[in-house]
Amino acid sequence: MKPVIAITAGDISGIGPEVIVKSLDLNPGLFKKADFLLIGSKSVVLANFKKYTQIKPNEINIINNISRLTRGINILDCPEFEVSSANINSKSGILSYKFVETAVELALAKKVSAVVTAPINKSSWQRAGIKFPGHTEALARLSHSANYAMAFYSKKLKIILETIHCPLSEVAKKISIDSIYNKIMLADGFLKQLGTKFPRIAVAGLNPHAGESGILGREEIEIIQPAVIQAKKKGIQVEGPYPADTIFYKAVVEKQFDMVVAMYHDQGLAPLKMMAFHDAVNITLGLPFIRTSPDHGTAPDIAGKGIANPSSMTEAIKLGIRLVVRDKC
Amino acid sequence: MKPVIAITAGDISGIGPEVIVKSLDLNPGLFKKADFLLIGSKSVVLANFKKYTQIKPNEINIINNISRLTRGINILDCPEFEVSSANINSKSGILSYKFVETAVELALAKKVSAVVTAPINKSSWQRAGIKFPGHTEALARLSHSANYAMAFYSKKLKIILETIHCPLSEVAKKISIDSIYNKIMLADGFLKQLGTKFPRIAVAGLNPHAGESGILGREEIEIIQPAVIQAKKKGIQVEGPYPADTIFYKAVVEKQFDMVVAMYHDQGLAPLKMMAFHDAVNITLGLPFIRTSPDHGTAPDIAGKGIANPSSMTEAIKLGIRLVVRDKC
Repeated sequence: MKPVIAITAGDISGIGPEVIVKSLDLNPGLFKKADFLLIGSKSVVLANFKKYTQIKPNEINIINNISRLTRGINILDCPEFEVSSANINSKSGILSYKFVETAVELALAKKVSAVVTAPINKSSWQRAGIKFPGHTEALARLSHSANYAMAFYSKKLKIILETIHCPLSEVAKKISIDSIYNKIMLADGFLKQLGTKFPRIAVAGLNPHAGESGILGREEIEIIQPAVIQAKKKGIQVEGPYPADTIFYKAVVEKQFDMVVAMYHDQGLAPLKMMAFHDAVNITLGLPFIRTSPDHGTAPDIAGKGIANPSSMTEAIKLGIRLVVRDKC
Repeated sequence: MKPVIAITAGDISGIGPEVIVKSLDLNPGLFKKADFLLIGSKSVVLANFKKYTQIKPNEINIINNISRLTRGINILDCPEFEVSSANINSKSGILSYKFVETAVELALAKKVSAVVTAPINKSSWQRAGIKFPGHTEALARLSHSANYAMAFYSKKLKIILETIHCPLSEVAKKISIDSIYNKIMLADGFLKQLGTKFPRIAVAGLNPHAGESGILGREEIEIIQPAVIQAKKKGIQVEGPYPADTIFYKAVVEKQFDMVVAMYHDQGLAPLKMMAFHDAVNITLGLPFIRTSPDHGTAPDIAGKGIANPSSMTEAIKLGIRLVVRDKC
């Protein structure tokens, strides 16, 4: 039995469906390792297959129940997921959330082995009354996960975020010893899942020059360092806090560390996107199932033009499969 | 007459003197374009020449007054700059500040054309009772400059910072429309100084996803966007605010912009150091004279070992000369 990878279509007014079908079309090797369940509006997904791939309609299995899942590509045909082309934009927020809900249900019921999510539009979620600032928070709530984190995987650089979608002005108030400690432990576990026997983890500081011995902020001394010490006591190979402007260089170029714990969104993501703009994968750690995602947005400006780059989605699918396979070893 | 470049020795317990003498030794071409005045403890500077270079004592002119300046390498011999090897660490803070003071005086009196500063140690300044968080703020105060900015130059990426040495928790309170507008104008002027006829400037957002239309913070809407609009009205080619995790990629790889206005220290410096770890130059814009500096610290851990990389200091000297020469055209 091959593992089943659920892939949600994301916001259907964006590039999600396009990068999904392109990934499956351009990487026939994927089908040797897994079967796929696409969760999205059937009409939209099929239209994207037709428009952007060589995959024939008879190679796609439309199923209305997970028990009917067959090999290769399946689309979950759910009437409530359907949409006419006229109301795609107004309905895309609520629909993309329903795709996620369905994927989580199937994952918790062990009907699928991993969930790969195409990007959603946060403004559309807000307009639809969905209060989560992003996928990560929604997935955590839907799966009742308290200790979770947004992390990113690329060959060159792996990062995990202490805080995610909060205004910069609130970051300093949100970080805590326990939470940073948890991120260090999640990073260590993830690296071991990937096959790194002795993970080396670096923790970034919050302030310029990592606070410069307290002159430019005291969070390094009062919060970050105690978390590092706590993790060291558990035998974790972790160092820090390091100045955030050079630690990514030390990890990527000098290869001193396998993963960096970043204190906030842009601290980790700006260096990551410099190193791996097209092939970084977003992964949620600490969930009861494996979840990966491309690290880009819905890109509505290029949606429907056929020019979306599927690399990050392809890498997300590959990482999902890799983690499932390793889990089973 | 060639221009005279003043070079301060920085904290003499760090790598400053070493990277200065190495830069002069390894780049004989520099002497075709400028003469040099080294401002530091004579005994320390001479010891570094002897230890790390092929430059002979008779090629170095020891002068006790700027009026005696000769061609090539000059050291300003000032008794109050002297230090015995026994008290280098305890005195290095106050000395490095005196070097800067002297350089500013000479620059304001037009006795030197540019000031290049080797790194100081901020903790040593604090211990010596010098309240400035860094060179930039000290230079601004000493030269009575109100509208100044810390900027960084490298071939691949140029950035300017809206806030510099302040705890992350204070960044959101410190940014303002006027101040961001000033940074945009300084960036535009700097790029024109470098010879870019039609500079294209990008402004980074403050919050994740540049605030995501206000959901993740309102500073983009209330502060950054108005500053961009104000600069556009002055005819500046400026766009933003852009999400900080991708704007540096757009500038460096897609070459959509010549310079990025970053809202805070690590937002700009982490991407910069990924792109130009060894050869980025720190430049203070808005002073009444040209000032450049390597973008690294004093690195006390490797001081005296002869392994410090002089590339950034060399680039700082070259950029100083380049800006002086262009100024004179």
